[in-house]
Amino acid sequence: MSATLHRLAGTSPSLDPMIDLVAEDMAAVNRVIVDRMRSEIPLIPELAGHLIAGGGKRLRPMLTLAGARLLGYGGTRHHLLAAAVEFIHTATLLHDDVVDGSDLRRGKRTANIIWGNPASVLVGDFLFSRSFELMVEGGSLRALEILSNASAVIAEGEVNQLTAVRRIDLGEERYLDIIGAKTAALFAAACRIAAVVADRGEAEELALDSYGRNLGIAFQLVDDAIDYTSDSGTMGKDAGDDFREGKMTLPVILAYARGGEDERAFWRDAVSGRRAGDEEFAQAVALVRQSRAVDDTFARARHYGQLAIDSLAAFPGSAAKDSMIEAVEFAVARAY
Amino acid sequence: MSATLHRLAGTSPSLDPMIDLVAEDMAAVNRVIVDRMRSEIPLIPELAGHLIAGGGKRLRPMLTLAGARLLGYGGTRHHLLAAAVEFIHTATLLHDDVVDGSDLRRGKRTANIIWGNPASVLVGDFLFSRSFELMVEGGSLRALEILSNASAVIAEGEVNQLTAVRRIDLGEERYLDIIGAKTAALFAAACRIAAVVADRGEAEELALDSYGRNLGIAFQLVDDAIDYTSDSGTMGKDAGDDFREGKMTLPVILAYARGGEDERAFWRDAVSGRRAGDEEFAQAVALVRQSRAVDDTFARARHYGQLAIDSLAAFPGSAAKDSMIEAVEFAVARAY
Repeated sequence: MSATLHRLAGTSPSLDPMIDLVAEDMAAVNRVIVDRMRSEIPLIPELAGHLIAGGGKRLRPMLTLAGARLLGYGGTRHHLLAAAVEFIHTATLLHDDVVDGSDLRRGKRTANIIWGNPASVLVGDFLFSRSFELMVEGGSLRALEILSNASAVIAEGEVNQLTAVRRIDLGEERYLDIIGAKTAALFAAACRIAAVVADRGEAEELALDSYGRNLGIAFQLVDDAIDYTSDSGTMGKDAGDDFREGKMTLPVILAYARGGEDERAFWRDAVSGRRAGDEEFAQAVALVRQSRAVDDTFARARHYGQLAIDSLAAFPGSAAKDSMIEAVEFAVARAY
Repeated sequence: MSATLHRLAGTSPSLDPMIDLVAEDMAAVNRVIVDRMRSEIPLIPELAGHLIAGGGKRLRPMLTLAGARLLGYGGTRHHLLAAAVEFIHTATLLHDDVVDGSDLRRGKRTANIIWGNPASVLVGDFLFSRSFELMVEGGSLRALEILSNASAVIAEGEVNQLTAVRRIDLGEERYLDIIGAKTAALFAAACRIAAVVADRGEAEELALDSYGRNLGIAFQLVDDAIDYTSDSGTMGKDAGDDFREGKMTLPVILAYARGGEDERAFWRDAVSGRRAGDEEFAQAVALVRQSRAVDDTFARARHYGQLAIDSLAAFPGSAAKDSMIEAVEFAVARAY
């Protein structure tokens, strides 16, 4: 089977093969997650559970589990690490929603709206600390190194994004730096630790890192494109959130770069927050379509998706490999 | 020399002996701190540096260094860990100021006032992640275990405190749980890791843990008492902050428990936030003095200080031991 995105045309790609592949491992990871969310302070499991039980795909820990399968690892050492990955992700989401002032995530009211910003900040800190306890228990200094480094890179990416808000002149390169850090670093680390757990060498570590990193970039590109498509039900967040927050994402960067004087003036006004209501959002959607900025954002996503798939080339064919390829196809096809 | 707090009467205790003892090590720790605060995102060193360079005593990393000296350890393995301890502490302060909406710390405007809450949350996350990178580099899974556990306990304590705000019926026991977690856990861990670095056994670990924990409780009790004394210049934060935020600390808990009907009504109103202006704060100060609640908070601090000193009993006399005893005396004498 030639592994390319052209398979897309024939089938409707899905995460189901990966979900089935790791179902047993994921049940064990879920037990760890539920167990380690516990605390004598009732607010902690209540708030954390709202998000953790709230319909997330658990894509990141699933990647750790699938990666281990790809390498033929059949043990359980990675269960604690996969739970740690999900805790890092959840802590990040809690803090993100505070930073962005979001009120909706995965179709539900955000924790900061229900319990307030202070509780979201502190429970995020708790989950983050717990994730490190889990990693320590996992017992691998190498995995700890990879995940603690990813955590620092994520935080750096978030600060970078914060300082990039309302910067109309951001440019694609810095945008890619930001999403590479805030999103792709954890995807990469989640995959890479599978090679550590399976006691493989640097080549396998790098291949899995590259798979995760490129998948993460593709994933974020599609998320950012969907924010400018009319039907945003797939995201479970408010369409136009990025627009209203003045967040510079690739659709805007491309539309601004390609626009004439009038269009550039519109984007400057909108991104600055001076004119960013519903009417302007409708106009923004029209402009990103007209300039093919959304189509090309999806095209970029397919490019990175292909890089992710190519990273797996050296691994022999297996159900695990097929599921990882299809996960990429699913990620880039979410828009259609 | 009999090590008791009665030495207080004769001398004016100071941190200087400890500062002198570890000066060379602390210079190395400071180099690590400055080096690891760096980032390509300029906001990170700018914001972190505001707090880290901002006149803190670096008491917690100093305790790691002094503890190592107490055990005769002359290496450098603890420098990275001591820097990690300071990063955890700084991250906590950044998030605390967001949670409390504070505007003054160590006599300076807080980072959240200057750069906003989002930046403080994210740079706190960055420092927290960096602290784990430093610990991993330190290479000791046992030290990682102690510090990651302390981090989770701190976050739990902060959430516990948040849910205790404006709870007039809090009680001394739960208050002690809160400060034991949010403050004393990091003091305990900072001291305990010295025994790990010096390759000592459980007895030394526990003795140093107990020293740090009791010192931390004493330290927080004095901080909480000072908030109800008229001259709060020593704290560098606004006197009456705890009062205005409805934070239940021991002076209030004792004054409420000892008060008659009228006084209890006053405290209920004040803690609920209905009447908590300058006039009420003046009345609160009068009431905590009248009921000896502040005096007895200081007395509790001396009790825990004595426990800290007694934890060192088994260690032979040395300049390190003397400096650690005097640090306790300094902590409990700050009010006088």
